[in-house]
Amino acid sequence: MEITTSNSKKLVIVSGRAHPGLAAEVAEILGTEVLPTTAYDFANGETFVRYEESVRGVDAFVIQSHAAGINNWVMEQLLMVDALKRASAKRITVVAPFFPYARQDKKHKGREPISARLMTDLFKAAGANRIMSVDLHTPQIQGFFDGPVDHLWALPMLADYVAQKYSSEELTVVSPDSGRVRVADIWAERLGTPLAIIHKRRDPDRPNQVEAHELVGDVSGRTCLLVDDMIDTAGTIVAAAKALKDNGAAKVIVAATHAVFSNPAVERLSNGVVDEVIVTNTLPLTEDKIFDNLTVLSIAPLIAAAISAVFGDDSVNKLFPGHA
Amino acid sequence: MEITTSNSKKLVIVSGRAHPGLAAEVAEILGTEVLPTTAYDFANGETFVRYEESVRGVDAFVIQSHAAGINNWVMEQLLMVDALKRASAKRITVVAPFFPYARQDKKHKGREPISARLMTDLFKAAGANRIMSVDLHTPQIQGFFDGPVDHLWALPMLADYVAQKYSSEELTVVSPDSGRVRVADIWAERLGTPLAIIHKRRDPDRPNQVEAHELVGDVSGRTCLLVDDMIDTAGTIVAAAKALKDNGAAKVIVAATHAVFSNPAVERLSNGVVDEVIVTNTLPLTEDKIFDNLTVLSIAPLIAAAISAVFGDDSVNKLFPGHA
Amino acid sequence: MEITTSNSKKLVIVSGRAHPGLAAEVAEILGTEVLPTTAYDFANGETFVRYEESVRGVDAFVIQSHAAGINNWVMEQLLMVDALKRASAKRITVVAPFFPYARQDKKHKGREPISARLMTDLFKAAGANRIMSVDLHTPQIQGFFDGPVDHLWALPMLADYVAQKYSSEELTVVSPDSGRVRVADIWAERLGTPLAIIHKRRDPDRPNQVEAHELVGDVSGRTCLLVDDMIDTAGTIVAAAKALKDNGAAKVIVAATHAVFSNPAVERLSNGVVDEVIVTNTLPLTEDKIFDNLTVLSIAPLIAAAISAVFGDDSVNKLFPGHA
Amino acid sequence: MEITTSNSKKLVIVSGRAHPGLAAEVAEILGTEVLPTTAYDFANGETFVRYEESVRGVDAFVIQSHAAGINNWVMEQLLMVDALKRASAKRITVVAPFFPYARQDKKHKGREPISARLMTDLFKAAGANRIMSVDLHTPQIQGFFDGPVDHLWALPMLADYVAQKYSSEELTVVSPDSGRVRVADIWAERLGTPLAIIHKRRDPDRPNQVEAHELVGDVSGRTCLLVDDMIDTAGTIVAAAKALKDNGAAKVIVAATHAVFSNPAVERLSNGVVDEVIVTNTLPLTEDKIFDNLTVLSIAPLIAAAISAVFGDDSVNKLFPGHA
Amino acid sequence: MEITTSNSKKLVIVSGRAHPGLAAEVAEILGTEVLPTTAYDFANGETFVRYEESVRGVDAFVIQSHAAGINNWVMEQLLMVDALKRASAKRITVVAPFFPYARQDKKHKGREPISARLMTDLFKAAGANRIMSVDLHTPQIQGFFDGPVDHLWALPMLADYVAQKYSSEELTVVSPDSGRVRVADIWAERLGTPLAIIHKRRDPDRPNQVEAHELVGDVSGRTCLLVDDMIDTAGTIVAAAKALKDNGAAKVIVAATHAVFSNPAVERLSNGVVDEVIVTNTLPLTEDKIFDNLTVLSIAPLIAAAISAVFGDDSVNKLFPGHA
Amino acid sequence: MEITTSNSKKLVIVSGRAHPGLAAEVAEILGTEVLPTTAYDFANGETFVRYEESVRGVDAFVIQSHAAGINNWVMEQLLMVDALKRASAKRITVVAPFFPYARQDKKHKGREPISARLMTDLFKAAGANRIMSVDLHTPQIQGFFDGPVDHLWALPMLADYVAQKYSSEELTVVSPDSGRVRVADIWAERLGTPLAIIHKRRDPDRPNQVEAHELVGDVSGRTCLLVDDMIDTAGTIVAAAKALKDNGAAKVIVAATHAVFSNPAVERLSNGVVDEVIVTNTLPLTEDKIFDNLTVLSIAPLIAAAISAVFGDDSVNKLFPGHA
Repeated sequence: MEITTSNSKKLVIVSGRAHPGLAAEVAEILGTEVLPTTAYDFANGETFVRYEESVRGVDAFVIQSHAAGINNWVMEQLLMVDALKRASAKRITVVAPFFPYARQDKKHKGREPISARLMTDLFKAAGANRIMSVDLHTPQIQGFFDGPVDHLWALPMLADYVAQKYSSEELTVVSPDSGRVRVADIWAERLGTPLAIIHKRRDPDRPNQVEAHELVGDVSGRTCLLVDDMIDTAGTIVAAAKALKDNGAAKVIVAATHAVFSNPAVERLSNGVVDEVIVTNTLPLTEDKIFDNLTVLSIAPLIAAAISAVFGDDSVNKLFPGHA
Repeated sequence: MEITTSNSKKLVIVSGRAHPGLAAEVAEILGTEVLPTTAYDFANGETFVRYEESVRGVDAFVIQSHAAGINNWVMEQLLMVDALKRASAKRITVVAPFFPYARQDKKHKGREPISARLMTDLFKAAGANRIMSVDLHTPQIQGFFDGPVDHLWALPMLADYVAQKYSSEELTVVSPDSGRVRVADIWAERLGTPLAIIHKRRDPDRPNQVEAHELVGDVSGRTCLLVDDMIDTAGTIVAAAKALKDNGAAKVIVAATHAVFSNPAVERLSNGVVDEVIVTNTLPLTEDKIFDNLTVLSIAPLIAAAISAVFGDDSVNKLFPGHA
Repeated sequence: MEITTSNSKKLVIVSGRAHPGLAAEVAEILGTEVLPTTAYDFANGETFVRYEESVRGVDAFVIQSHAAGINNWVMEQLLMVDALKRASAKRITVVAPFFPYARQDKKHKGREPISARLMTDLFKAAGANRIMSVDLHTPQIQGFFDGPVDHLWALPMLADYVAQKYSSEELTVVSPDSGRVRVADIWAERLGTPLAIIHKRRDPDRPNQVEAHELVGDVSGRTCLLVDDMIDTAGTIVAAAKALKDNGAAKVIVAATHAVFSNPAVERLSNGVVDEVIVTNTLPLTEDKIFDNLTVLSIAPLIAAAISAVFGDDSVNKLFPGHA
Repeated sequence: MEITTSNSKKLVIVSGRAHPGLAAEVAEILGTEVLPTTAYDFANGETFVRYEESVRGVDAFVIQSHAAGINNWVMEQLLMVDALKRASAKRITVVAPFFPYARQDKKHKGREPISARLMTDLFKAAGANRIMSVDLHTPQIQGFFDGPVDHLWALPMLADYVAQKYSSEELTVVSPDSGRVRVADIWAERLGTPLAIIHKRRDPDRPNQVEAHELVGDVSGRTCLLVDDMIDTAGTIVAAAKALKDNGAAKVIVAATHAVFSNPAVERLSNGVVDEVIVTNTLPLTEDKIFDNLTVLSIAPLIAAAISAVFGDDSVNKLFPGHA
Repeated sequence: MEITTSNSKKLVIVSGRAHPGLAAEVAEILGTEVLPTTAYDFANGETFVRYEESVRGVDAFVIQSHAAGINNWVMEQLLMVDALKRASAKRITVVAPFFPYARQDKKHKGREPISARLMTDLFKAAGANRIMSVDLHTPQIQGFFDGPVDHLWALPMLADYVAQKYSSEELTVVSPDSGRVRVADIWAERLGTPLAIIHKRRDPDRPNQVEAHELVGDVSGRTCLLVDDMIDTAGTIVAAAKALKDNGAAKVIVAATHAVFSNPAVERLSNGVVDEVIVTNTLPLTEDKIFDNLTVLSIAPLIAAAISAVFGDDSVNKLFPGHA
Repeated sequence: MEITTSNSKKLVIVSGRAHPGLAAEVAEILGTEVLPTTAYDFANGETFVRYEESVRGVDAFVIQSHAAGINNWVMEQLLMVDALKRASAKRITVVAPFFPYARQDKKHKGREPISARLMTDLFKAAGANRIMSVDLHTPQIQGFFDGPVDHLWALPMLADYVAQKYSSEELTVVSPDSGRVRVADIWAERLGTPLAIIHKRRDPDRPNQVEAHELVGDVSGRTCLLVDDMIDTAGTIVAAAKALKDNGAAKVIVAATHAVFSNPAVERLSNGVVDEVIVTNTLPLTEDKIFDNLTVLSIAPLIAAAISAVFGDDSVNKLFPGHA
């Protein structure tokens, strides 16, 4: 009279309200649908969520895009995780394509929070077992979470697009400042191009006072590819683009994973200095953030592939053959 | 060559940006000032905080008022707690006069979060050692936190005001619905008045379909005091007030601790049905929420007294002589 | 040479000694047997338990009924959970049909424990992953546990019995005091009957001194159904029954989930004022607690159905179609 | 306007109901009184406790004696710890002179709990910061708790009594079985006496079947001191005493720290075989457990000295000069 | 469009570098191979590990042998556990055949660590879910870990070897000191032999000064089997062997599970006093530790059987039929 | 009869065996001595520690230098923390001037540990409340610990030495590779000098194959200061020095905080290319690591000042006036 049953696993995709299109696209690629969920805000801003179908025993992936109004989206995702935990989900993976507060990953001065670490603590407190994210601002953030972090790379996708479209041009990868050279290096290696660096350098004769943007490497007549992990107000990247054109660059294109696009990013990027801006949709791009020379590649196939691998206990590293 | 030093304690008040006036008033009563703090939001809504003076070894009280836009205020308070923890504060008390998400203190249906519990978990994860709050929606919320909760009562202050102002009138305390009778009972006992109840009752001849507001108790010609813990959109309370007037009440006054005042509360409360609305400033009352028949009593003296007791290891219960 | 195996799940029911009949009934409905277990007390009261068969990898449900001598039953259940954890059970669900210490769910005054929260902390410390209970004294207790709580409702079962047996009579649901109106409301709605309330009300002319039981609603000539979550010494419920009869009720029946029946409950309930007492067997009803007008409905089918759903990752909410 | 205060410490002794006399004696030695506490049991056995004075910021010592009915005393102590934690006590030390469930300190067979470890987990879950106990059954139990354990020794006190009273006699320390030789060794070393061992030994010619109590060492005409950590039913110890007398011992005295004295211990110990039984009052000795040849030494001075050292940050090891 | 998959389990064996042969043997018996792993030390001693194949979702057994240089092997094992946890292994069992720091299982004096407990805390902190070990120095160490501990016994294997080889001789099991009598007892019972004890005893006439090794039991002309859990420098065991020969023993053989063999163990054991030394390979036996009269039995079949049982949710107790 | 006492704090310095001179120097500056401690290794490498004086209630700083043989020093420090915790130290700060495993602060590829995070987890598990370190390899490591981290800077001390000694020369700060530009920038700003960068750059005509060291900035005739956080084998730094000399540098000096000096660092640094090497003694510099052109500045005054500030609740940030 022993009672046993096979222990099958069930995949469930749930989504916050910040970027429902991305979750829907991920679900569609996986051949399923986002689980029906009720979510709304009360008059004073308190968020309410309820799942409309059973999540008992499921392997849940909670997709939220941490767009502007970010505290609301973090809190909604935490509430969703809590509800899954209390409804007996078996495993809960927080999918945060653009990790919230990633830039506050250390104390720049004393008496500051380490906000990115706090985020991992909050996800854990709510009940998350795992985290999935794309192109973390610094890879050390993986170490903030006491558990598995699936760190996805948008670079291969972005690089393939560039390689195909600009195959006939003389490309040079450019780092917009000295702190991002390592990322630019990886791009250059993948695309087989030279590397240039824009460096803010002090004049030796006037220490501590005057800075000059110095270009390291020759870009004259070449198509320059400026790379970064995110574009927020676009100040640095557009200044770099101008410096490249001043130095004779034939064309300047920009590639970045996360299109934060806070004001006045759109204005700066669409005013002619940059010839093409290539980003992914880790963050929602509302109509006012779309402009002529913008190309948006969907991150959904990558996230879907990673979810599929995690669900099926396959290697996520295999998705990045040149890397791991 | 032994090194010892006396282990003095230092009190520090820090405040979020939701209701700086309240914290300033608390600090002033205590004879100190709110610790200078830098706080602002980035373009995408990420919040930044930094304390401008050392908090090493202090006994810190982090005052935040959970007004509309509540998720921002929760997150700011969490970041403030994290910064205190990492800057070696000795003890951290979260002061949340109006506890966030207090109404979601259970699962009303399946697959919901228990948001009030999540809040205590988040405060704990950030580093809070203690919680102080005023008139929790249900007292069981104290049990959500694994540590000391100082639960303050605004009732004595509100009741004293009513007792003084309406001493010459025939008062009756009224519960606006059957779920709040216990609170009304305590009011009636303190003021030495009769109690009335407004109850939504079904017509025995038409079960499951028709409801009627039924008044239990005689209010004819009397001054009715409707009591509740909070007023959000004021729908229930104003309907109750109307029912009381319909039943011959001479006057209807309303007393509540938390003035959430979401739309259209102000309109409803100021249109003549209610003669006086008495609340505290646990939540900030901006100009658009002030109206003629509104009386605001400051909660600051009570919070200051409680902080002083906690800091000095005195009894907080003593602040409520009739109660504990 | 990869070694894989199918990951089947195995259900195991274990039982404390407080109410073995209930566990046996649950197991029988599920088509299995309670796992053989050795349990006894040493001379000084120390409890010993050992499972006589392997529990490695099982999905274990630890049924204990928290009857009188409650501390022994809590401790036995904790020891059983510890033994399961150390013997590599995969998942452990504490089944406590009558949740211990549920009435101490808040601090009524200062310097008290919140005992119901302590119980959840002890179960967690011992190794419990989940809790299952029936009709918690307050639903907020769900929020005391940091994990899934399956909260079962006996109401449909009790109500169906009443509906069938008293279908030809004029029923009125009565709340025995103002604090239980919400539960009575749900009964009234389900049975399609009017609602009455017994309210302890102060005489307006003699404040703070004299109380009177006041009946709200008309019960003359009707069959009154008094409802509550538990009956301990039966003082309140029998006083209410008397008041109903004094007001002309034709018959008074009582329905409650938990039959604590401390002395002198049996005497009070069997002395003629109450016509029928309907309870469940969440607590063991020894012979001395059985009396003529007592009807006991078994809670075993409900618990068995819930265990079956939890084990099979089916929805527990589905068991309560009118509710969730 | 900086607010600082000196951070003085306050000592508080609270006591469970198992052995109030011991706590009162400890408090008196310390020059204070046990904090007034309300404690009683409800009809179904649920225990209630409340402190009648503020415990905010105190250094609390929760004394409970784990006598028969042990589960009630454990639960009461857990509730007392929870109440202290929630009432803002600064530090909580569980004082359990006789550690509950100490004999279940390992799995003797599979699928058993490790009950002594569970006890430390429960104390921790309730909020205990430290544990104080006397003569743990095995010293490894110290390692069960993740925090400081003050392990007190009654041996010096018992040995001093024996040394003084029997100074003119020829003493031999005897271990009642082969598992307790190490403790007997320490006694012999302290008293400067020879050591004898009683060993259950198999007959070489009849393996696996017959056992014989074998005495190692010469006891003829000597005063034998049988030592053990506790006396429960006294079966082993009295059998050993008989064997000693059979081997010509002039006198047999017994010394043990914990007088569990379950039936029929009193009968066995008072029937003439043992000449004097020397124990401490770590457990309450009710009148029915007192007999002529019993000597009870109070453990209160030792516990008081240890509490004083812990409160004053002095060394507890200094209390045992020959040992640490 | 529901996505489900069968939830098969996959077994993975990984090994530290202390004793790769043992892990390889275990894997071979199980019909698999040790997972390819890169491991090396940097110049300053920092250890690096990386798994060369996916471990996502696996049931991992991390075998490490805690040989000399033990801190390196502990740290390597901790790093291996951390890497498994972060790579999404489903369950992680630390296999430590010789448990590190097992002899420091209590505070012998004040202000010492309880190192064996610290080891369990470190394994837990790194991410271990379970522990498997062979013949723990004291069984209480099981209680140091908050989770399942599979405690394996080498005794049956060692005893079977002795029984077979020495079946025609007159065997006597001997405990080398009074603290190991219980283990010797189990051997004697299993082999059906008499038991002897070597006891360090004080001369009654010269207390506190002179000790003499006393032999309890008759060994004249017999084959003596000295048993212990481990042999470190072999001082005690060889002194015991000499005492046995001095008392007329015909032959002395030694059996122990763990061959620590620190200097000068090999010299002492191979110099003729001991006729045969029988150990297992829980620790690696390099060439310099091999000598003529040494017999090494492989522990691999036992560990493999236990891993197989754990992986397949079978009883581990069944492996020791005479015991559990 | 209330017992209170003043709550004075006592500072205690304890030290591991890796670098006792550093701890002694720190203690001397503070006007105290390192607490007497027994520490040794057993034959199999197990480490033993015991404090020879009471540490009850102290504010303990556990100084260990993570030199070669690093796993032993980590384990010794963990054991020291465990012993302090169990001996009732009030607060425990791990002082690790050179943080162990700091370079493994992320997963470079899949299936690696994040060893620096593991270190913080181990310190926490053992009982550490706080961490103090000097010049962490990446500042994000602060976020690995759930508690206060005092991050000290050796830069001001090193820079002051350089400024004084080379005040009459034309200095240029040089980053040895593109990943350390930010640190070099801070040096240049503090010293008021120009900055140069050595960058490994690919030949645009031969992508992916050939690298060239490229010097950015003019160093001809100048004194070049190469800066880094640590020097391990000195390969990179000496290659950079050669490139600077090749480009006409008049002198090359090297400044770094941590002198790991693994082979063949000493040989490389003393062979004439580098004119002066300036380091601190965060790691012990044994005689074989001392060479003519090496200058060692003691880090002890900085650590002593930080300990004094932490003990006295003063600001640690104040020690770095130009920075925080």
